[in-house]
Amino acid sequence: MKIGYLGPEASFTHHAVKSVFTNEEYIAFPTIPDCLEALAEGKVDRAVVPLENALEGSVPITIDYLFHDVDLHITAELISPIEQHLMVHPDNVDKWQEVTKIMSHSHALAQCHKYLYYRFRGIDLEPSTSTSAAAKYVSEHKEENVAAIGNSLAADTYGLKIVEENIHDFHFNHTRFVVLTSEKESELLSFEQDAEKSTLMVTLPSDDRPGALHQVLSAFSWRQLSLSKIESRPLKTGLGNYFFIIDVEKPVDGVLMQGAIEELEALGCTVKVLGSYRKHLLEPQK
Amino acid sequence: MKIGYLGPEASFTHHAVKSVFTNEEYIAFPTIPDCLEALAEGKVDRAVVPLENALEGSVPITIDYLFHDVDLHITAELISPIEQHLMVHPDNVDKWQEVTKIMSHSHALAQCHKYLYYRFRGIDLEPSTSTSAAAKYVSEHKEENVAAIGNSLAADTYGLKIVEENIHDFHFNHTRFVVLTSEKESELLSFEQDAEKSTLMVTLPSDDRPGALHQVLSAFSWRQLSLSKIESRPLKTGLGNYFFIIDVEKPVDGVLMQGAIEELEALGCTVKVLGSYRKHLLEPQK
Repeated sequence: MKIGYLGPEASFTHHAVKSVFTNEEYIAFPTIPDCLEALAEGKVDRAVVPLENALEGSVPITIDYLFHDVDLHITAELISPIEQHLMVHPDNVDKWQEVTKIMSHSHALAQCHKYLYYRFRGIDLEPSTSTSAAAKYVSEHKEENVAAIGNSLAADTYGLKIVEENIHDFHFNHTRFVVLTSEKESELLSFEQDAEKSTLMVTLPSDDRPGALHQVLSAFSWRQLSLSKIESRPLKTGLGNYFFIIDVEKPVDGVLMQGAIEELEALGCTVKVLGSYRKHLLEPQK
Repeated sequence: MKIGYLGPEASFTHHAVKSVFTNEEYIAFPTIPDCLEALAEGKVDRAVVPLENALEGSVPITIDYLFHDVDLHITAELISPIEQHLMVHPDNVDKWQEVTKIMSHSHALAQCHKYLYYRFRGIDLEPSTSTSAAAKYVSEHKEENVAAIGNSLAADTYGLKIVEENIHDFHFNHTRFVVLTSEKESELLSFEQDAEKSTLMVTLPSDDRPGALHQVLSAFSWRQLSLSKIESRPLKTGLGNYFFIIDVEKPVDGVLMQGAIEELEALGCTVKVLGSYRKHLLEPQK
């Protein structure tokens, strides 16, 4: 089976993929749309991309692309602990406290905001396209004495030395990755256990009368269908127009869920079912 | 009066500030937290930062910083049309179709995703810290034949030539900026007109029983208080824990709003009122 993932090599997504798919072919893609398009076009059998981080929130490009551009289905979610470390070229280990610049993905820089503020105030922070791209740059520019922030897989892959561990500001830092398929029904993988939950994308009626969202939530509430998440994203038709991503703690094929979805549609809502799937918790790296 | 804003010079925020504050002292800050901290510490009298874009959604760092780190109040919102243009160094106008790299803020690159995909597929896209930082780089590296994406103020400021106008993928692209003060009651400015609305930040009770959000919305719904926005953001205490940003189309001092807020608090919710304020629509640049 071919597994597409958000690269480059040594990314957090790569780590998640390696944790659950063994003896499969991994293919890295440079962006989330590239990875999702490859699945839609049948070039890979599964795609794995980040959906949400416990600190930074949802990954907008994943949600927007799944809503607007492709018709794909979530078949599993992978919850991975995220640990950010400060790393330098091995030749610069003795002078890491005098680094001239710190590079990482903007989310990783944000996750270490307080550490960087108190420890490296005034030092140039340079956003990179990924944490592992930052590690790669550091490995190739030892004369610059720059540091990268990233995971231990990136340090291993690019031969860097971790000089300070776990520099992220908040504990409980996890990222949700989703495993996507192009077909609604697909073979269950060995790690797909736990109770099923569902993710729906709901658009309110176009007349958008006040209280419509309350009505949507009522349809779930009186049936005692628990929502574990509700989030709005812009419809891109103008400020103030949103669709909603709703996670419900039940599979979509039950009588109550079917009833709720049918009633929402009868009320003029559009409901896109992203999938019913199982959660899988990953171990921390090393 | 000193007005702090998210810089650098020629940013979209700068444009918004110049549109409503005349004859005041403008001070640019490199990051949103720097700008908000300056206001909290009394170094400026107002701070202006972006809160939400019609395509990209909320600006997470603004919302999170207002929730977690400072006690500031919204006194007005500025709605500004956002137009993205492709610009090059004047010496490279004849060969702009062969640019080797296109630079801009990651949000601007995302807003022009389809244009770039169809027109410049495979060309290196480099994220910069702001659209105007990208324009500045292009003005200083004419030998590289690189292009920047940004607004016309950036083209003017850095002497670049716009070679393709309005390359953003979706029309109706606006950004909401908020004008913040450190005091709850502050003098109204001449542009603060229109009907008042309110922004609340609501945290559900810590036992977080299913349906609590539905209950919160009911408190507004049966009072016919219209919500123009509801959005969740991570509490940063673990995946699945959120607070909610709710915009209500009424000022916070009315009887019904006071009743709703008091009842939510009695139910165990925490309600932080970010302010009751007026909307101001800005003209497009030029």
